[in-house]
Amino acid sequence: MHQPDNTTRDMLGRSKNVSLGKALLALQKHIKPFSTDNETVPLDNGLHRITSHPIKAPEDLPPYPRSTMDGYAVRASDTFGASQNNPAYMEITGEVKMGDMPLIRPAPGTCFKISTGGLIPPETDSVVRLEDTVNIAEDMIEIIRGVAPGINVIGTGEDMRKGEIQIHLGHRLRPQDLGLLAGLGIKNISVKQMLRVGIISTGDEIVPFDEEPAPGKIRDMNSVVLAGFIRKAGAIPKYYGIVPDKESDFHAAAKTAMEENEIILFSGSSSVGIRDMGVKIIESLGEPGVIVHGVAIKPGKPVIIALCNGKPVFGLPGHPVSATVCFEMIVLPAIKLMEGSFHSFLPDKKMIKGILMRNIPSAGGRKDFVRVKVRRKKDNKTFQIDPVLGKSGAISTMVKAHGYLVINESIQGLSKGDEVEVELF
Amino acid sequence: MHQPDNTTRDMLGRSKNVSLGKALLALQKHIKPFSTDNETVPLDNGLHRITSHPIKAPEDLPPYPRSTMDGYAVRASDTFGASQNNPAYMEITGEVKMGDMPLIRPAPGTCFKISTGGLIPPETDSVVRLEDTVNIAEDMIEIIRGVAPGINVIGTGEDMRKGEIQIHLGHRLRPQDLGLLAGLGIKNISVKQMLRVGIISTGDEIVPFDEEPAPGKIRDMNSVVLAGFIRKAGAIPKYYGIVPDKESDFHAAAKTAMEENEIILFSGSSSVGIRDMGVKIIESLGEPGVIVHGVAIKPGKPVIIALCNGKPVFGLPGHPVSATVCFEMIVLPAIKLMEGSFHSFLPDKKMIKGILMRNIPSAGGRKDFVRVKVRRKKDNKTFQIDPVLGKSGAISTMVKAHGYLVINESIQGLSKGDEVEVELF
Repeated sequence: MHQPDNTTRDMLGRSKNVSLGKALLALQKHIKPFSTDNETVPLDNGLHRITSHPIKAPEDLPPYPRSTMDGYAVRASDTFGASQNNPAYMEITGEVKMGDMPLIRPAPGTCFKISTGGLIPPETDSVVRLEDTVNIAEDMIEIIRGVAPGINVIGTGEDMRKGEIQIHLGHRLRPQDLGLLAGLGIKNISVKQMLRVGIISTGDEIVPFDEEPAPGKIRDMNSVVLAGFIRKAGAIPKYYGIVPDKESDFHAAAKTAMEENEIILFSGSSSVGIRDMGVKIIESLGEPGVIVHGVAIKPGKPVIIALCNGKPVFGLPGHPVSATVCFEMIVLPAIKLMEGSFHSFLPDKKMIKGILMRNIPSAGGRKDFVRVKVRRKKDNKTFQIDPVLGKSGAISTMVKAHGYLVINESIQGLSKGDEVEVELF
Repeated sequence: MHQPDNTTRDMLGRSKNVSLGKALLALQKHIKPFSTDNETVPLDNGLHRITSHPIKAPEDLPPYPRSTMDGYAVRASDTFGASQNNPAYMEITGEVKMGDMPLIRPAPGTCFKISTGGLIPPETDSVVRLEDTVNIAEDMIEIIRGVAPGINVIGTGEDMRKGEIQIHLGHRLRPQDLGLLAGLGIKNISVKQMLRVGIISTGDEIVPFDEEPAPGKIRDMNSVVLAGFIRKAGAIPKYYGIVPDKESDFHAAAKTAMEENEIILFSGSSSVGIRDMGVKIIESLGEPGVIVHGVAIKPGKPVIIALCNGKPVFGLPGHPVSATVCFEMIVLPAIKLMEGSFHSFLPDKKMIKGILMRNIPSAGGRKDFVRVKVRRKKDNKTFQIDPVLGKSGAISTMVKAHGYLVINESIQGLSKGDEVEVELF
């Protein structure tokens, strides 16, 4: 779906940018979920991985009814009507040993002592809590609160029923999910391979960050920032070095990155020459090529969104701040779409409400991501929101900030005193 | 600060539990921030690590003034008053090559073409954006919007000033922080060692999750759940196996775990015998020993909080659900206190507001953590909140849930139709 409307004569994306919403919709049309292969990992390495199949319970859990309280296993009918004023007296004729299968039933009208997790002895159906009893002799209790059948007992299969789906396809595994799988004795799990994201930096002015830059050169910050965001997103970054302003080198690096990754990011120089070369190279990598060139966001406007043989390719602006906004707002949704991860209807960001401490101008028709600091007022729980001052190219503004204040397309600026909501980093 | 008030005669914590707030305050009094050693890691491995020192900029960034736009480097005074109706005409007498140090100044009244990131040539002080010019001949432009000095230029040290602290002590490094450090050429960073958390499971009824349980036994879920939460918190879990109901084995495992970790978690059996033994062993590990026994939360009430020779030791309930609540509400704050991480005034959880779809009873004086599902209404953006039904011991309730609805001590239950806020997992 090539969109010539969104490109200007010189492909700089300087006029008629599409909205962020439309850009994401265009991306979504082209992206196939679950686009990586499956692999099997030990349960202990499963945290935050995405399931490749629905997982069913291979057995009932618990396999036998267990007590959920410390107390006494009883026949509920023996306790009916017992209360503080009218207690039931009962002899303790045994004790359920933890970890043992109780084979003996308490004699009618008597009870067994039981701890939380102990198996319910034959013929008993409920547990009277320790705190609802009074010990009146070593082997005799007063029950001051009767129970109904099943009370304080977790029945066979009440946690999980054999054959029922417990965890869905495309679920990002949380600690409790791993616990459930452990409870079912599942030692290895099939998950989607982690997405691999190739990073190619471009530009004659960029040197690797661990080299001393000659005058006029600058260290490569973008690769490091992007690798951090890729890891944070649960994917694997791979560097392909810095490509100078030479088409053959650029093309060779892009081809290798395309072969070895599911997503490719070009980042770096905003020089017109390299930008044009970037578009040409992206177009050569596969169909349909560039689908969006220029999005109505600030910062991040000149971003290029492409799909080449089913793989998303992004041309990110040279400023680390702009590159960050483009990553979070465009590349991250692409990663989630490719993962096919569920629960996507839940909000994805920590938000905080506060009072804006300054006017912030903004052009209508553009989504602005303003970096802001958050302070807490000493007297109460109100938060104060200040924009971080500084040039948009300055990475220090991203470091000083706690999050973004998003100003939507329909709004022209915000005023001091407005209640606003901040997306925390 | 031993608190005998909070322990019952039999140390089961069944009466007069302290509030969660008081328990955390007691813990805070005893915990020393930054309690691990420092280590040096390559920048690329620094994500989410905690800085052990403030980090100053060793140089100005940028080292020379650079353009923040594509356009023309000019003397601002040559453009004063230029507008659409009254444009300034200017000859293009050169171009700044990306990555080169420009040594030649444009002749007075002329300009050099420049790309974003290019160095400002001598005697120029500002950049006119490409979009504020019209090319009227190959080497001649009309400027339709004048600039003031410094416009579209980022000056020497404007991003970071040499010697200024850029990143504070105790800061958890985000992708943008790594980018800033890359920009300063910092290859290795000193960070706090990751906290190590030992996990000891107890109970005769527990078997390792990868073994087939005999009748009456149950697989160890807690260790797996806790290890997941520990990893999620950026710490390192270490298993010390399952300790049966035998004091010497229990004590040996506890001693080893104390030597090898900064935090120790006992988890598992709720059987009274093991619980009492657990308290005895914790008391033997160092001063002051148990500081809180029993917290007014549901689930999680019987939790034990101890400090032994400066190391927090927690006795967690046997149910994975209760253990999870205790981990998130008590152990996690301890980890953060020990890390000494900053920004702690910011909310830590993703929250979502919605309408409660059922009445939920709750006892006053107790903080309830109700597991809830979140649904989005089709017609709009409202969320509907349903409690997950099921016994509190059932781990499947944690897996089906999207988060906790917290019912505070001062509230006795919530009603259907109430607007409530959910802490998402």
